[in-house]
Amino acid sequence: MIAILVTGGTFDKQYNERSGTLAFSETHVPEMLRLGRCRVDVAVRQLMMIDSLEMTDADRRSIADACLASSESRVVITHGTDTMVETAKAIAAHRFEKTIVLTGAMVPYAFGSSDGLFNLGSALSFAQTLPAGVYIAMNGRAFAWNDVRKNRASGIFENL
Amino acid sequence: MIAILVTGGTFDKQYNERSGTLAFSETHVPEMLRLGRCRVDVAVRQLMMIDSLEMTDADRRSIADACLASSESRVVITHGTDTMVETAKAIAAHRFEKTIVLTGAMVPYAFGSSDGLFNLGSALSFAQTLPAGVYIAMNGRAFAWNDVRKNRASGIFENL
Amino acid sequence: MIAILVTGGTFDKQYNERSGTLAFSETHVPEMLRLGRCRVDVAVRQLMMIDSLEMTDADRRSIADACLASSESRVVITHGTDTMVETAKAIAAHRFEKTIVLTGAMVPYAFGSSDGLFNLGSALSFAQTLPAGVYIAMNGRAFAWNDVRKNRASGIFENL
Amino acid sequence: MIAILVTGGTFDKQYNERSGTLAFSETHVPEMLRLGRCRVDVAVRQLMMIDSLEMTDADRRSIADACLASSESRVVITHGTDTMVETAKAIAAHRFEKTIVLTGAMVPYAFGSSDGLFNLGSALSFAQTLPAGVYIAMNGRAFAWNDVRKNRASGIFENL
Repeated sequence: MIAILVTGGTFDKQYNERSGTLAFSETHVPEMLRLGRCRVDVAVRQLMMIDSLEMTDADRRSIADACLASSESRVVITHGTDTMVETAKAIAAHRFEKTIVLTGAMVPYAFGSSDGLFNLGSALSFAQTLPAGVYIAMNGRAFAWNDVRKNRASGIFENL
Repeated sequence: MIAILVTGGTFDKQYNERSGTLAFSETHVPEMLRLGRCRVDVAVRQLMMIDSLEMTDADRRSIADACLASSESRVVITHGTDTMVETAKAIAAHRFEKTIVLTGAMVPYAFGSSDGLFNLGSALSFAQTLPAGVYIAMNGRAFAWNDVRKNRASGIFENL
Repeated sequence: MIAILVTGGTFDKQYNERSGTLAFSETHVPEMLRLGRCRVDVAVRQLMMIDSLEMTDADRRSIADACLASSESRVVITHGTDTMVETAKAIAAHRFEKTIVLTGAMVPYAFGSSDGLFNLGSALSFAQTLPAGVYIAMNGRAFAWNDVRKNRASGIFENL
Repeated sequence: MIAILVTGGTFDKQYNERSGTLAFSETHVPEMLRLGRCRVDVAVRQLMMIDSLEMTDADRRSIADACLASSESRVVITHGTDTMVETAKAIAAHRFEKTIVLTGAMVPYAFGSSDGLFNLGSALSFAQTLPAGVYIAMNGRAFAWNDVRKNRASGIFENL
């Protein structure tokens, strides 16, 4: 059993046609799992629905708390890419004996050409096979929380 | 480095608008890797482009040969779902010291609501983390080649 | 008020993931009208759901009968492209005092890159503005029923 | 021959994955015409690429000038929906002897579920059949410039 903790991020942004802006509404994770015909036993919990640039220390604490509180020993967290590394670090400080994998997307799932479905398939697979630790699953790779950064110019995650 | 061996299957079927039928043309795997912003070092090789119901023993031998010949110790094979288990078995008979992961799709990638991108992300991730052996990555799970079947009624892969 | 008579054709083909073939299920016309935010007053009636290559004279008679029976003086018919011209001719023989516009698609709406939505918007607009007569709306153009053929090599409709 | 004058609007917004915001880049109109297999003789001219809420009187003058300058007697203008009615009014003041049809979209074409393709097919068809005048083509309907408003609550265009 894997817990999927939803925090928002580009993954879940959608177009609000009344305001003409990007906004959050409901998470797309259940629909994505359906599309992927996913049969992994998962429990999806929406913790918050925010842009990761607006994530506070209190938000990060509540994510770490949810990791600790979850009965599952394997956790996937969907998260905005901009501060994903910071949240990974905040969780790692707690030294949980769990496999925790953060993932996200560069383009909203609701838009045509998103990397979200690829990343979700990747994150769920890494979560099933990697030993306890905190990881970031982006670009088809798994990075240890303390050896990764987002290259803002290219939008690609890379080792330090 | 991971070798991606392309054999066709639903994954790569597309709509031929002249004939009004499903047909194979070029593989979509490079486009899917681009969409997934994949930065895993991969070498894509198209071995054949066929429906897996038409796959012969000779075809399976040539897939096994390609696994053996590849310099990479990790291999992903895209394959039709109908006989994926048979091909996995044929490859496993060779007892290569490689991690070999077969994957496919229930709906063509070229169509709106395919599981292909999810499965490719999943297969590439399992290929990086699982020990040597032959596996099937479908439905977000990894199955050992000798403990899996496709349930034809539901279209879902399950343990024996 | 416009009657939309659904007969099937590529427009409504979809991928049957159990059989791995193209098949008909329900019409996509209501979903397409929703997507197009269409506010034209329409009544959608599904007459049949077949490939136009399999359409018989009896089928064409029943389509003409439905045109006659409809209380609306403006009618859009969704139809396979292969024999659309024949059906237009069969309807025109009845010399109804109605504006009747046949349309279809080269690629199924359910697949990624269909012309269906463009054609439906076009057909509904021609149906509102053209005088009584039988027309084919394809490729953004409206053709009189007796001055049109489908160029099978290019898949494009053209004047005789 | 129809002139298609591009001014931007939701139609052409896309997701900028570096900034995580909506932005304009190139117009999608040529790609949409290709998708619709459009064979109407058109000349696409990009006048500006802006949100219609930012459109100035000078911008509207330059659009009217382009209508006048175009050798084609039939013109389609892609435009943001928020001030489409104002621009229609500004063009109508010039009393050109041309058929001028403004259209747009509630959801960007680049995103999954846009009305853009439907609206473009509709606008091009109205432009071919309506007499000289200035119109708005939205929701599958054609409105005279002086009998239309956008209902901001519903996002639907309606008669006064």
